[in-house]
Amino acid sequence: MINYVKVKIFISFVMLFISAQVFPQINKSAGKYVLVIHGGAGTILKSQMTPEKEEAYKAALTLALRTGYNKLMAGESSISAVEAAVIVMENSPLFNAGKGAVFTNEGKNELDAAIMDGSNLMAGSVAGVTTIKNPISAARAIMEKSEHVMMVGSGAEKFALEAGLEIVDPKYFWTKERWDALQQIKKQDSIKKINNQTDKKSIKLGSENHDHKFGTVGAVALDNKGNLAAATSTGGMTNKKYGRVGDAPLIGVGTYANKLVGISCTGWGEYFIRSVVAHDVAALMEYKNMTVEQAATEVIMKKVPALGGDGGLIALDKDGNVAMPFNTAGMYRGTITKQGKIEVLIYKD
Amino acid sequence: MINYVKVKIFISFVMLFISAQVFPQINKSAGKYVLVIHGGAGTILKSQMTPEKEEAYKAALTLALRTGYNKLMAGESSISAVEAAVIVMENSPLFNAGKGAVFTNEGKNELDAAIMDGSNLMAGSVAGVTTIKNPISAARAIMEKSEHVMMVGSGAEKFALEAGLEIVDPKYFWTKERWDALQQIKKQDSIKKINNQTDKKSIKLGSENHDHKFGTVGAVALDNKGNLAAATSTGGMTNKKYGRVGDAPLIGVGTYANKLVGISCTGWGEYFIRSVVAHDVAALMEYKNMTVEQAATEVIMKKVPALGGDGGLIALDKDGNVAMPFNTAGMYRGTITKQGKIEVLIYKD
Repeated sequence: MINYVKVKIFISFVMLFISAQVFPQINKSAGKYVLVIHGGAGTILKSQMTPEKEEAYKAALTLALRTGYNKLMAGESSISAVEAAVIVMENSPLFNAGKGAVFTNEGKNELDAAIMDGSNLMAGSVAGVTTIKNPISAARAIMEKSEHVMMVGSGAEKFALEAGLEIVDPKYFWTKERWDALQQIKKQDSIKKINNQTDKKSIKLGSENHDHKFGTVGAVALDNKGNLAAATSTGGMTNKKYGRVGDAPLIGVGTYANKLVGISCTGWGEYFIRSVVAHDVAALMEYKNMTVEQAATEVIMKKVPALGGDGGLIALDKDGNVAMPFNTAGMYRGTITKQGKIEVLIYKD
Repeated sequence: MINYVKVKIFISFVMLFISAQVFPQINKSAGKYVLVIHGGAGTILKSQMTPEKEEAYKAALTLALRTGYNKLMAGESSISAVEAAVIVMENSPLFNAGKGAVFTNEGKNELDAAIMDGSNLMAGSVAGVTTIKNPISAARAIMEKSEHVMMVGSGAEKFALEAGLEIVDPKYFWTKERWDALQQIKKQDSIKKINNQTDKKSIKLGSENHDHKFGTVGAVALDNKGNLAAATSTGGMTNKKYGRVGDAPLIGVGTYANKLVGISCTGWGEYFIRSVVAHDVAALMEYKNMTVEQAATEVIMKKVPALGGDGGLIALDKDGNVAMPFNTAGMYRGTITKQGKIEVLIYKD
């Protein structure tokens, strides 16, 4: 009788252990996505959007998804897929990356990008470049053609030239909409300074308008071999000063991929850096057995807001499950399944 | 009888649970360190060291420890202590940081540094600066006087000037020993290139001599209020090209602190970035309940070498426990206890 009870209790524990190991696998097998992208999170309000603008964004996101998907279907790597998807968004004036990047305080376009191969943890990153047409390709070239991971400024541009990448006149990145945004924010900032001269926070060097922190594009893909890759590209913050670098080009912060998950972030970079967002999502999955949805939600909806930051991320795990949490009004985002089914979203619904 | 067995099994599980929770606490209370520093890991061989040089390193490390310790004893924050300790090493020509920084391929000294306050996750970082006497103070000023975390290049220098930091002529950083090292490595590299023209790896852009990757200084402190802080400063790699940035200035990679642990790394930066070393140590402690020794050892002795990288780190937890693993021949390092007992080490013994 005693033995029977012992055996029963033992079996219960074994069952509990097995279920904890197996059930997440079963849930995960419901996943079916091969590529997920974002075009930035922020104060994207339906009330401020025209039907034409909304259509333009949806068309660009769809093209990015289709382009990356075609690479995957042709048997190319997840690295090629995320690079291709990001290039589409870098080449579109709609997004704050490549053509369409926001202006710095000095009226320049300083671009940052990063890419990471989850299969071998190889990574590449550029920051503060002004002449490389597609910064994401420079990040890839650094990963594949140099022994370094991160290069900044004119040194990175020199490398890109030697690596055979397309170099453009900085004027290529000029767009009227972003230029007007810089003029507007400068005007607002000078009014703010006059109104808040006694407010300690407002006199911090490099103080920025909160609403202009967003933008950034990114992609995460899962290829036929089961390898994940993540890529992120951005023009940073409108009116940024002092060679400020945000989270996008920082491996483990705005961009990360390993064998379990790939992540690309968009949001108020300073808070994302302090939270080491992308690696934290991966660590919660690996060390606490959270699902991609649980881990991404924990970081974006709890940890980052607890510090006062906002933004979002996209994450894709090795079983094709997607998470796209954001704590802003909207986030340009889209997914494509293995069967080619595309979904593109902007607002919370 | 059955109930007795059930109760016994239940008690066993409860005891197991309690012991898992309590015993680490008991072990942790043995910890007694308040400040730990490093002056770089690498190929430091006793056979190549003179007694005079060894004494000079030990004296400099002791001075750094004493300086940081005095801040703590005066009731200042862990941030002030790590900054003070790092400044001593930046101002010494012995270490690859500040005065004593190695030269880039172009014969410049490009400096990187980062600081993080574990009590509130505030952080500051600079990369690629050439005129700031103490880059660690620039990192602190960015953390405290700007809304940003990371600034690079001339933008960061402009900020440092406006923040009132000491600006020096780039010649200040010139030292004969580092200059000679650059000339030697350039000579070796050109011989290597001739000998290995068919070796694919050797033609990678930015290829470097492995033995010249090291240096970097860092400190982690625990103050009277129980707050941790970490700081790291470096001149990077001798002969570095293309605006290369290593792990030191990257929050979560070379430098990280939270309420549980503070970490500063030194080693082959590229591998440390890909491993997101500092945050991984913190995550293993927080999410897998590892001790600081277990977590630091796991990352430095297993994960980084598995990728092919080498180096070391210092870590100090909230209970005053220290870990200083390294997988190189030596690491300049030292600790000081709450009672002021100093220990300074160079080699494995």
